[in-house]
Amino acid sequence: MSNVTHDVIGVGAAIVDIIARVDDAVLDEQGLSKGAMTLVDEAGSAAIYDALGETTERSGGSGANTIAALGALGRSTAFIGKRRDDEFGDIFAHDIRATGTAFDVPAATTGEATARCLVMVTPDAERTMATYLGVSGDLGPDDINADAVSGAGILYLEGYLWDKPDAKDAFRRASEIAHGAGRKVALSLSDAFCVDRHRESFREIVAGEIDILFANESELLSLYETEDFDAAIEAVAKEVAIAAVTRGPDGAVIVSGDERIAVPAQPVAALVDTTGAGDLFAAGFLNGIATGQPLATCGAMGCAAANVVIQILGARCTDALKAKFAIEDWG
Amino acid sequence: MSNVTHDVIGVGAAIVDIIARVDDAVLDEQGLSKGAMTLVDEAGSAAIYDALGETTERSGGSGANTIAALGALGRSTAFIGKRRDDEFGDIFAHDIRATGTAFDVPAATTGEATARCLVMVTPDAERTMATYLGVSGDLGPDDINADAVSGAGILYLEGYLWDKPDAKDAFRRASEIAHGAGRKVALSLSDAFCVDRHRESFREIVAGEIDILFANESELLSLYETEDFDAAIEAVAKEVAIAAVTRGPDGAVIVSGDERIAVPAQPVAALVDTTGAGDLFAAGFLNGIATGQPLATCGAMGCAAANVVIQILGARCTDALKAKFAIEDWG
Repeated sequence: MSNVTHDVIGVGAAIVDIIARVDDAVLDEQGLSKGAMTLVDEAGSAAIYDALGETTERSGGSGANTIAALGALGRSTAFIGKRRDDEFGDIFAHDIRATGTAFDVPAATTGEATARCLVMVTPDAERTMATYLGVSGDLGPDDINADAVSGAGILYLEGYLWDKPDAKDAFRRASEIAHGAGRKVALSLSDAFCVDRHRESFREIVAGEIDILFANESELLSLYETEDFDAAIEAVAKEVAIAAVTRGPDGAVIVSGDERIAVPAQPVAALVDTTGAGDLFAAGFLNGIATGQPLATCGAMGCAAANVVIQILGARCTDALKAKFAIEDWG
Repeated sequence: MSNVTHDVIGVGAAIVDIIARVDDAVLDEQGLSKGAMTLVDEAGSAAIYDALGETTERSGGSGANTIAALGALGRSTAFIGKRRDDEFGDIFAHDIRATGTAFDVPAATTGEATARCLVMVTPDAERTMATYLGVSGDLGPDDINADAVSGAGILYLEGYLWDKPDAKDAFRRASEIAHGAGRKVALSLSDAFCVDRHRESFREIVAGEIDILFANESELLSLYETEDFDAAIEAVAKEVAIAAVTRGPDGAVIVSGDERIAVPAQPVAALVDTTGAGDLFAAGFLNGIATGQPLATCGAMGCAAANVVIQILGARCTDALKAKFAIEDWG
């Protein structure tokens, strides 16, 4: 196994978030399932956008958020994702590079626009998303840079792109390359409805190719089609080397072989917006893995990073994250 | 004088802000004058952008911020400004319409891109701006909708566009129409360096056409080329019916004929970003004028609105502004 050129390389959607505070009635009117990610086409995205009040735009994308946070924490990172040569594409590229992340994929000059995610934050700080994947869903096996993937210690894949067959093939290709080079492959299940749509192929890849799995409680239950959390934990323990299962305000459970480590969530002074909580948990956790921490510390780092992002609007929180990790005592 | 169709119509630049927190060193490296607005071309904007960390995008534009806030406060508003048919143009149009503001100018299909303003916020919460005016500077007399201007109770002009000859002609045309219909014309001086570049024509329009003038202390001193604040106040009192002069943490002075009303600034719990302080002061003040309040109350409303915007990032603060004005006692 050759030297590591990056600690973590992510493959996912290159997205800009359009964030709006909304009342619950807006979700009902637009037929959106609260707390979930709904895929929409360009016209559907425009129709919902028209119904929103003033917005804030910030770079997003689940896997990209994780990689950006890892970059902010000082890890060596790279990202593979597809954008157009439009203004949102420029924003995405600028912001991920600003975290020190290598992002070498050229902007597409044809095809659909850069992906956008309408992030609707209700007064309870829950976020509901409507995503227009645009050109980001055109990511295919040819976009996978074999040298970059084989040189990275960990390959990180986001489940959201599972809805796109080409992207799924890209993930499989990246996974093959990573394993061929003796690297670890991590996957985030992303969304319970997404798991529901693609359960069979998720089950197959989790069992066959994933070393580190990230899921929240509902995603894990959906994956194993059970309502029994303990049964789901036992099932996942048999399939992956490490599973990190988040439980919102109840923290996380880290599962590895016979180990079950409960990690408490940190107290929240002011819950603002849950967008990116899972993405940042994964970042904190992988930060621990990449720096050789024991699993309990990895879990604590995950909870610390999630704690930061839910107290700001949006999913990018570089400054606050650096400040938090600079003072935290992981003892 | 026919009925008022809008309380206030604004004419200004249609801009999207790209907001970044920076250290003071970045301003020095980029040769930017702290606290000021520097005009840059597209390449200059891109070069500074490359030097910034992660950013947040929000609709901006000085006059547009004022009009959007007036819309949020329940006034009937309209805006005239030029944007392209690009993503930033869509964001600008969406956000100003989301405040209830009529914005009927079609997006330009040729010419430069929609304007963008790089807003760099230093740790002291001061903002320094580098603006690429793009297509917004092509605003000309033909873009002025005579019916809309003559139907609005107050015409509000932003000084920033004074750098563009066509836009200046558009302002003069709008002012003529407004006065012809017996309406009031308000102007914000916007920036001391901008006043310095165009002192003669600002002096001419202030003396000849402006009913309500907004300026901060340094802009007023620059306009009258004096270092004596009292002398500047006496000078402006002779030229406009009402002048509202802001003094940062010292509040504002409202000048009208022989009246001098000192209005204190409201206490600030957490100063975040001074972007939009002047724009929001103007919004609060004009909200008072449009609702027939005495000048002291207009000034208090201006200080209240400014107080809201300096405690958030960016210049659009609809929800917080509505909340503030819902509970405030103007007695």
